[in-house]
Amino acid sequence: MVDEFFISLAIKKAWEYQFLTYPNPAVGAVVVKDGKILSILAHHGAGKPHAEVEALKEAYYKLTNDKTILKLKSSNKIHEFLYKNHNNIFNTSTIYVTLEPCNHYGKTPPCSLLVEKLKLKKVVIATLDLNSEASGGVDRLKKANINVKVGVLEKEAKELLYPFTKWQKDKFIFFKMAQSLNGEITGGYISCDESLDFVHELRDKIDLIIIGGNSVRVDRPTLDTRRLKNSTKNPDILIYSRDKNFDKSIPLFNIPNRKVFIEDNLNEINNYKFIMIEGGYEMLKATKNIIDWHLIFIAPKIFSNTNLNKPIPLIELNYLHTIKSGVDLKIFAKIK
Amino acid sequence: MVDEFFISLAIKKAWEYQFLTYPNPAVGAVVVKDGKILSILAHHGAGKPHAEVEALKEAYYKLTNDKTILKLKSSNKIHEFLYKNHNNIFNTSTIYVTLEPCNHYGKTPPCSLLVEKLKLKKVVIATLDLNSEASGGVDRLKKANINVKVGVLEKEAKELLYPFTKWQKDKFIFFKMAQSLNGEITGGYISCDESLDFVHELRDKIDLIIIGGNSVRVDRPTLDTRRLKNSTKNPDILIYSRDKNFDKSIPLFNIPNRKVFIEDNLNEINNYKFIMIEGGYEMLKATKNIIDWHLIFIAPKIFSNTNLNKPIPLIELNYLHTIKSGVDLKIFAKIK
Repeated sequence: MVDEFFISLAIKKAWEYQFLTYPNPAVGAVVVKDGKILSILAHHGAGKPHAEVEALKEAYYKLTNDKTILKLKSSNKIHEFLYKNHNNIFNTSTIYVTLEPCNHYGKTPPCSLLVEKLKLKKVVIATLDLNSEASGGVDRLKKANINVKVGVLEKEAKELLYPFTKWQKDKFIFFKMAQSLNGEITGGYISCDESLDFVHELRDKIDLIIIGGNSVRVDRPTLDTRRLKNSTKNPDILIYSRDKNFDKSIPLFNIPNRKVFIEDNLNEINNYKFIMIEGGYEMLKATKNIIDWHLIFIAPKIFSNTNLNKPIPLIELNYLHTIKSGVDLKIFAKIK
Repeated sequence: MVDEFFISLAIKKAWEYQFLTYPNPAVGAVVVKDGKILSILAHHGAGKPHAEVEALKEAYYKLTNDKTILKLKSSNKIHEFLYKNHNNIFNTSTIYVTLEPCNHYGKTPPCSLLVEKLKLKKVVIATLDLNSEASGGVDRLKKANINVKVGVLEKEAKELLYPFTKWQKDKFIFFKMAQSLNGEITGGYISCDESLDFVHELRDKIDLIIIGGNSVRVDRPTLDTRRLKNSTKNPDILIYSRDKNFDKSIPLFNIPNRKVFIEDNLNEINNYKFIMIEGGYEMLKATKNIIDWHLIFIAPKIFSNTNLNKPIPLIELNYLHTIKSGVDLKIFAKIK
């Protein structure tokens, strides 16, 4: 039960970065020494340290009060620093990780090597990394005589990991919807900066946005990442429309380094790995067979709802995770 | 930050019993020894031990492995047992409580006395109990030379406490709504046993249900607590209706020990302390000025929504807390 509690904290932390770690998995890690939590951290995104590195960095600081390590941002530098300075302070500590620590030399040395060198007492892993070149971490840890436990809250960890497993072998597609509490979707009901920031962060990660022709004509969207300081990436756009005639002064057509397709089919999705569909119920009806997950923002508002008279196909979902996003709720769900 | 983390766990646990502790406050407590969490528990309801007693009972078991204490259910027995057997094992422990420990001899001795006798090192309190006869716990603890810290996550703790403060000085009224994800309310969209059980538990606590005449005629509800094994209480009913003619074979009229009022006004609310309003948008419009909080169940379903063509008054909310309730979401919210 104690192991489940710490893994649950790691899973919850990782969900904060769900989708933003693309093409990496969302992973969380918790370091515990003699029952005391030293750190709860997650992988923040590609190019940034893995969850284990973030959590061990913070834990080192908690144990030593040595601020030097807080200045180190690159995974390589943190690895090097910890190799040299750990002085066996982790030898009664346990690291809880939602995914098997990686075991390959990519841009940085493997996390399993870091755990081995720091001589942690125990590693608790929610689920194994079966499909990736990074697997094999457990074998290394066991050879180093570290106590390894696998499979704590495995179902929840596999759900967290699902987008990664999907985009690794094929592609992952989610349907983004924003609504009022009573189901009004006209106008894209997002109530706050936090939710808008998250949407722009998403656009910085995804390859392709699918949007309906009517939404493009009515909303005249830009669909770029202008809210982000350091993003130069803007996703390609597939306008799903029979009528291929569009006013090209609509801002989305005038974003550098972007392809815009106007098609009456969805074939283009096969050239992309991480795809967001935007739209209302018509779009949902048209795309429901290709959707992996739903991402639903619910604004805390109730008001007249007049746009929902059309028949909507019955879609039964399972809620995966709900997070407060500013004043909105952000719900991850999948088809039941 | 560490104190905030432990208090946040206590607050989260307490929300699981929000409304069910009536007329007591929802309170959570966490016991921590040398940074290690020993217990996270909440007050489960009137007549049951306070959160501090539950948490110290569990913590005692964790520290001693003595199962004797687990058999004790009454607060008095747990108090007595701990007085005799604590052997100063808590003298490096901290208890985190969302509300000032009580200081009055009611059916059980005060929690502040228990904490004093067990000689805890520190007590961290999110918010004080200013209005109640139970206040004064902090003074007792300070006199006993226990380190007391007050005001950690105070805003969140006051929100958790709000129904209690309201029903203490006057009355607390919440509007219960159950809907599909896309806002369909016809049929009372609750998807699972967990949510239905919670609604019956609510009916066991509240004094009065307000319901619209049309709902009574169409749904022919019973509005009792039949899902609960040990409940004999069924709330009184105020049918808010201009037309006072009802088929008296509708089950709600035939529940023992229940008053049923049929009125075209809401004056009857002044005779009650804890009131639930059931209904749709018409009822919401009629009662919105007397509502303290909203309780919204959202079923994980999307389907044709044809009942929302009528104008609805704009209501802006703040989400207070969201919990998964079986497959549904259960959202506590208040008017912004």
